[in-house]
Amino acid sequence: MSQLVKSNRSNRRGQSRSQKRENLSGAVQIIPGVRREIPTYELLSDEGLDLIEQNAALILKEVGVEFRGDPDALKLWRAAGADVKGERVRFEEGLVQSIIARSGRRSFIQHARNPKRSVELGGNNVVFAPAYGMPFVHDLDAGRRYGTLTDFQNLIKLTYASRWLHHSGGTICEPVDQPVNKRHLDMVYAHLRFSDKPFMGSVTTPERAEDSIEMARIVFGREFVDKNCVIMGNINMNSPLVYDRAMSGSLRAYARANQCPVVVPFILGGATGPVSMVAAVAQSLVEVMVGVALGQLERPGSPAVFGNFLTSVNLKSGSPTFGTPEPALGSFAAAQLARRIGLPLRCSGAFTSSKLPDAQAMQESVTSLYTALLCGANFILHAAGWLEGALTIGYEKLVLDADYLGAAHTFLKGLPVNFDKLALDAFKEVGPGGHFFGCAHTLAHYETAFHESELSDTNSFENWMDAGQLDSAQRANRYWKEVLDLYEPPPLDIAIDEELQAFMTNRKKNMPDIWY
Amino acid sequence: MSQLVKSNRSNRRGQSRSQKRENLSGAVQIIPGVRREIPTYELLSDEGLDLIEQNAALILKEVGVEFRGDPDALKLWRAAGADVKGERVRFEEGLVQSIIARSGRRSFIQHARNPKRSVELGGNNVVFAPAYGMPFVHDLDAGRRYGTLTDFQNLIKLTYASRWLHHSGGTICEPVDQPVNKRHLDMVYAHLRFSDKPFMGSVTTPERAEDSIEMARIVFGREFVDKNCVIMGNINMNSPLVYDRAMSGSLRAYARANQCPVVVPFILGGATGPVSMVAAVAQSLVEVMVGVALGQLERPGSPAVFGNFLTSVNLKSGSPTFGTPEPALGSFAAAQLARRIGLPLRCSGAFTSSKLPDAQAMQESVTSLYTALLCGANFILHAAGWLEGALTIGYEKLVLDADYLGAAHTFLKGLPVNFDKLALDAFKEVGPGGHFFGCAHTLAHYETAFHESELSDTNSFENWMDAGQLDSAQRANRYWKEVLDLYEPPPLDIAIDEELQAFMTNRKKNMPDIWY
Repeated sequence: MSQLVKSNRSNRRGQSRSQKRENLSGAVQIIPGVRREIPTYELLSDEGLDLIEQNAALILKEVGVEFRGDPDALKLWRAAGADVKGERVRFEEGLVQSIIARSGRRSFIQHARNPKRSVELGGNNVVFAPAYGMPFVHDLDAGRRYGTLTDFQNLIKLTYASRWLHHSGGTICEPVDQPVNKRHLDMVYAHLRFSDKPFMGSVTTPERAEDSIEMARIVFGREFVDKNCVIMGNINMNSPLVYDRAMSGSLRAYARANQCPVVVPFILGGATGPVSMVAAVAQSLVEVMVGVALGQLERPGSPAVFGNFLTSVNLKSGSPTFGTPEPALGSFAAAQLARRIGLPLRCSGAFTSSKLPDAQAMQESVTSLYTALLCGANFILHAAGWLEGALTIGYEKLVLDADYLGAAHTFLKGLPVNFDKLALDAFKEVGPGGHFFGCAHTLAHYETAFHESELSDTNSFENWMDAGQLDSAQRANRYWKEVLDLYEPPPLDIAIDEELQAFMTNRKKNMPDIWY
Repeated sequence: MSQLVKSNRSNRRGQSRSQKRENLSGAVQIIPGVRREIPTYELLSDEGLDLIEQNAALILKEVGVEFRGDPDALKLWRAAGADVKGERVRFEEGLVQSIIARSGRRSFIQHARNPKRSVELGGNNVVFAPAYGMPFVHDLDAGRRYGTLTDFQNLIKLTYASRWLHHSGGTICEPVDQPVNKRHLDMVYAHLRFSDKPFMGSVTTPERAEDSIEMARIVFGREFVDKNCVIMGNINMNSPLVYDRAMSGSLRAYARANQCPVVVPFILGGATGPVSMVAAVAQSLVEVMVGVALGQLERPGSPAVFGNFLTSVNLKSGSPTFGTPEPALGSFAAAQLARRIGLPLRCSGAFTSSKLPDAQAMQESVTSLYTALLCGANFILHAAGWLEGALTIGYEKLVLDADYLGAAHTFLKGLPVNFDKLALDAFKEVGPGGHFFGCAHTLAHYETAFHESELSDTNSFENWMDAGQLDSAQRANRYWKEVLDLYEPPPLDIAIDEELQAFMTNRKKNMPDIWY
């Protein structure tokens, strides 16, 4: 077989720039999400799920949720029949569920500016997006430092170039060199200019959410945006049981525009939630349902994603921990509950506490990501790049995780059983003690038989030595530089680009810089 | 909370040697296997499993299996009604299944010389054992080199010291400095002298298998051994569809002594099996069932383990690949088939192609090990230490994997749902916007709420910097040295030790050294 096909290595020599890009880049091969053909993993029994739902109903009724600084939200809740006292809202059994059941959507399309990259959220569809919200960036050369707009753009380019990341994400890192009140414009512009994949806008204030949506309108057209989802906002609520104005206001801004809030609790067991994962799952259910229902009150039928973010805490040091077994179990349970409600699910990601793209990083990240694949998540944010408990995104980590997502594509396709796959003739041809390398079945299938990683080294020890004895992070370091070097932006209509820039310039002109 | 309990770090200062051992070592805390309280993952439908079984039946009937150089095996098959032509044996539908069903055991105890460490194989029990069969060893200081008897003993000591490894394994590395025909004696002695966990003997010839069993008889008593399983032999058959004399003879030696053969195909898709995983699973079923049935013909009612070892091949280079998605899927299917037969299952492990304990190593190893946990494996050989496609065992890799097995213990316990776990009072006490650190539920549970890794760093970036900016392999390097330094052997009766040594001396004296 080794004579039949030249190795990747020798193939790469003498390639044209476009051939190289084709090998490295998803700009050529478009994969708009992947369908999960394997069953979900059902951890809890129906009885267990019932108990969690009953507990959630008691929390909704007896403890309630606070909406702080958002009188419009309180008004909507009052009109819907909730019990509103001050900023505290309590909910009779079944109220939020019935609001969601009445108008919540089981699945929807998020349109990309390149229609081939539009993704479906819900059902058996799985969409991978990179890490979100990190103030720091890391690479092997410069180590860890605050993220800049250049980092932001680089990371969007790397995400664009990976065929395995279907979605451009949102705040892939905080561009800390830009004013706090203006950087959302630069971020949304970077997604629209340097990628043509679907993306997420700002949520840090309702006004910035509206700016983000307005920029999407420039690209997609006002009318199209009113009827279709083209942008998401990641609404991280203030667990436990609080929505502040920034979050509920931004949530309502997305819903009002018929765009998609991803409603996500932020539960660190023992800190912003109980130390018991089962209780944290009930809390998660309460917090998400209330947020999703608020979106439906703002605009019935608007899209929404059921988010889940659970983790544990090292109770000796108080540090959050990631990729540990308890949140994996919790994610399975939360996913089962999300399926009962019937909303698209965001769950888990490539989580780790590690500061480096090392063994620990991948022990934790793969635990977390494998869980996401099996629990039935539809939208896997943080699927690539995450380091240090969401404080850092790593260049090497991003491409290593994205490479793993390639394997995940194969995994999600499952194991079809049919006559050709059973290959009885191959056994007859080869017989006891024979070799399958040259048999007809192998020759017919070898090119597509197995997924091949671009970054894992499967060479002999001697070849690996000759190639410089690199560990996988060092290979990833070479890889992302090669990808950035070959990057070419997707086309964008000049008039639209100018309109986007004019909008930004105008918005920036009218605000003084704020740096905190 | 951080005031309530001192960190691990400060606790460790000023500890006595025995306190340090208690923290580091499983010699104090004995965990004889772990029960899986979570459901298995059922990848294939009954129809899919039926098709694979039908294909296996056709392979058994039309292609058959060869037993080379083992006339006694052919005699047993002839007597059992199989179709024997030369060394080829073909099986009418249902023959091997009925032999297994008649006398195969659904579960059994493997006794350890310390009765507290005896393990149950089968049912929902899970037993973790270290890597097996590697000619090379690796550590960060000395790099990769051939294994020696000192390495063998060190690795057995590290395995003994890990509370998460229930089993001492077998050929943890090849002690290449010992003659090929004598090293099995040194290996079995090391398991018996430096550990008191259950272990595996030699399989490289039937005579060495018998030597291994004879040494077990010295320790456990001849009569006890005849009635109870105290030693296993890992029978790697010569896939496709061949047992040579070394393997079928050793298999029969273990069965004859009422000891346990672990019957394992060695299927590299595209080389020793077809490129289609579904077909490889059918092949696996054929090869294992024939081996297990042969053991039952040799001695009805003897214990056996259904083994499964599938992997893929990089069809460009011909290198085997590990921790990839296809064998993960294949393992789920093979495990479903093993459950239909009702035998204890050995499946998967911490597989990787990586030469180093790096990100790649753990991307692949965790994929493979997580699969083993969910597929329902009872005996997970290669659960710790594996590097470079089974060519190398790593000191750092061993302790990093073993640490991950700690998390696996928590994962396997699942998520019980009950009144206390639901913690409704905690929500009432804390309320919206509160903090769970100090609430009654947290105070009652914080010490046991979350599994804590010994090797993962969850500190702040600043604390991690102060501690030397070590990656996880570097921390593992410090850790295994500390464990070896604190190692103390379990007690062994002096008379028994002398008898073991006399047996070895005598056997060695009567053979010239063989080095190939």
